[in-house]
Amino acid sequence: MQNPDVELRLKNVEGHIRGIQRMVGEGVYCIDVMHQIQAVQAALNKINQMVLEDHMKSCVIKAVQGDNAVERERVLREISEVYEQATKV
Amino acid sequence: MQNPDVELRLKNVEGHIRGIQRMVGEGVYCIDVMHQIQAVQAALNKINQMVLEDHMKSCVIKAVQGDNAVERERVLREISEVYEQATKV
Amino acid sequence: MQNPDVELRLKNVEGHIRGIQRMVGEGVYCIDVMHQIQAVQAALNKINQMVLEDHMKSCVIKAVQGDNAVERERVLREISEVYEQATKV
Amino acid sequence: MQNPDVELRLKNVEGHIRGIQRMVGEGVYCIDVMHQIQAVQAALNKINQMVLEDHMKSCVIKAVQGDNAVERERVLREISEVYEQATKV
Repeated sequence: MQNPDVELRLKNVEGHIRGIQRMVGEGVYCIDVMHQIQAVQAALNKINQMVLEDHMKSCVIKAVQGDNAVERERVLREISEVYEQATKV
Repeated sequence: MQNPDVELRLKNVEGHIRGIQRMVGEGVYCIDVMHQIQAVQAALNKINQMVLEDHMKSCVIKAVQGDNAVERERVLREISEVYEQATKV
Repeated sequence: MQNPDVELRLKNVEGHIRGIQRMVGEGVYCIDVMHQIQAVQAALNKINQMVLEDHMKSCVIKAVQGDNAVERERVLREISEVYEQATKV
Repeated sequence: MQNPDVELRLKNVEGHIRGIQRMVGEGVYCIDVMHQIQAVQAALNKINQMVLEDHMKSCVIKAVQGDNAVERERVLREISEVYEQATKV
């Protein structure tokens, strides 16, 4: 995949994580650190959803419309696996 | 969808929930109640994953291979929406 | 714990689960089943949060104010454990 | 809070996020990007749990053993709030 919006959002997350490191170094209140980490996790959820949408509009459509049954199954199983993992993190 | 395994698992979840009601009525320790509810949530995650797999093997393949571009988009957007919701519950 | 509101909510979840079983038996659209299961999970999250609040106002305050260091540690470790589990289901 | 282990883990997460940006820039397969982001989320869950444990061993014990009922309530409500948020990200 290549997606400038996803790259920009990851860059923002990187800066956010650096900010949280500073907060911890400065002895900020624990609960404030936790809220910041939870905000990063919400941002990562959003990014992953964008990646999934891109993926479905390109690779999934191509594989499902293609003639290769093995490839089709693999692509659908992968989506099921990222869904399963999403319920665990 | 129709899936006897999913129905059976939902029946087990129903019995589990009834058991938790009894526990609460009997004044069981809070943390034990929480662990039981978390076990139900793990069971529901598993059920939802099974439903998603069924869905992809039938409706999604059919819609993506079909000629209706609107229907194709709708089906893919739905998967993206259940993924988004999965990261929130 | 004993909490009539928690018991009532669990009773509602039980009815909800029974309704989802009917939906599956009647061959309702997969994505609608998934949304219903996600609604149940949101309800269970709310119930678990209520149980945790009750627990902290009673057992946790009592244990932390008490003289038994082992008991105090156990009660705090339990909260950390349900938090950990909450990020996984 | 100040915790060198938490700071180090955040530094690792920062490097991980930078690596994912590179992957996206290089057009790596979408599903591989999603798995990496989910790995970061698992690492952040672990960090937040460590912060919560630190918090309970210090601030929570102090507040609950203290004489200030308002402060005690606030500290316990905060834990309930981070738990609630944990079930949503």
